[in-house]
Amino acid sequence: MIKIQRFTPPDWPVIWKLMQPVFRAGETYPYSPEITEEEAYKAWIESPSGTYVATDENQEVLGTYYIKPNQSTLGAHVCNCGYIVGEQARSRGVATSMCEHSQREAVAQGFRAMQYNLVISTNESAVRLWKRQGFELVGTLPGAFRHKRLGFVDAYVMYKQLVIYNM
Amino acid sequence: MIKIQRFTPPDWPVIWKLMQPVFRAGETYPYSPEITEEEAYKAWIESPSGTYVATDENQEVLGTYYIKPNQSTLGAHVCNCGYIVGEQARSRGVATSMCEHSQREAVAQGFRAMQYNLVISTNESAVRLWKRQGFELVGTLPGAFRHKRLGFVDAYVMYKQLVIYNM
Repeated sequence: MIKIQRFTPPDWPVIWKLMQPVFRAGETYPYSPEITEEEAYKAWIESPSGTYVATDENQEVLGTYYIKPNQSTLGAHVCNCGYIVGEQARSRGVATSMCEHSQREAVAQGFRAMQYNLVISTNESAVRLWKRQGFELVGTLPGAFRHKRLGFVDAYVMYKQLVIYNM
Repeated sequence: MIKIQRFTPPDWPVIWKLMQPVFRAGETYPYSPEITEEEAYKAWIESPSGTYVATDENQEVLGTYYIKPNQSTLGAHVCNCGYIVGEQARSRGVATSMCEHSQREAVAQGFRAMQYNLVISTNESAVRLWKRQGFELVGTLPGAFRHKRLGFVDAYVMYKQLVIYNM
């Protein structure tokens, strides 16, 4: 049973611990592998309009995601989300649960579409998962990500309409 | 003769005047049509890593552009630029001059590619111009822009490699 709730300040030490190995690896997010706790707090908690935490039935934290408008006013009906699953919690459907939750939250908050700006091409399990969730790979950005191990690799823009648009 | 130089504080009143009708129209940039002078200053001068001003032989201001990294650290080798041409200065090659200048500046500053995140599909002259400059239309974002007159319209992600990437 995966439960997803709004982030509250006491969650921070646990999710920071969970995020660190992901950022340090430099394989999936553009943040510096040497990102500080303060910078991470700003990026994951302060800048987004909402942050969520996924836990199991024992209240153990499994993952976290944020949601925010992807552009300002005239593009603010499209949201952007970022997801992190703890290394101990892989292959348990946590990312899928968070992605589904984020789409419901997005619609509830009035967003009409969701955009991922920089899905790293070498992160194949993520690309597969977003496709399964109905995201379209709308474009490839050649060499747009400097992967810590592999050097410059392509990144994808992925997009899903949540509400069919009209005038 | 179009001359392009770094923005200096005395340029602000003139470029703010030039930008206002563009932002107020709500047809090409996601900023609020009601953007205040302070917000515009932040967006165009403070947030970017550099801002430039195009003038003619009489020192009349024709246009302005900014340059900034499009993502943080591991994506910071790709820059993003925004360009505005004054309404009185249209069809004089100002956008082309600024785009060429920005590409040279980008390479000089160590960027390897340039990305436009939200080229409005109805802004056909801009799309044509960026294509002529070698930008590829890498993807279409359905309904990603809320055009002030037309409602939700598609936007494009456009991209140009300035340095061929290697490891």
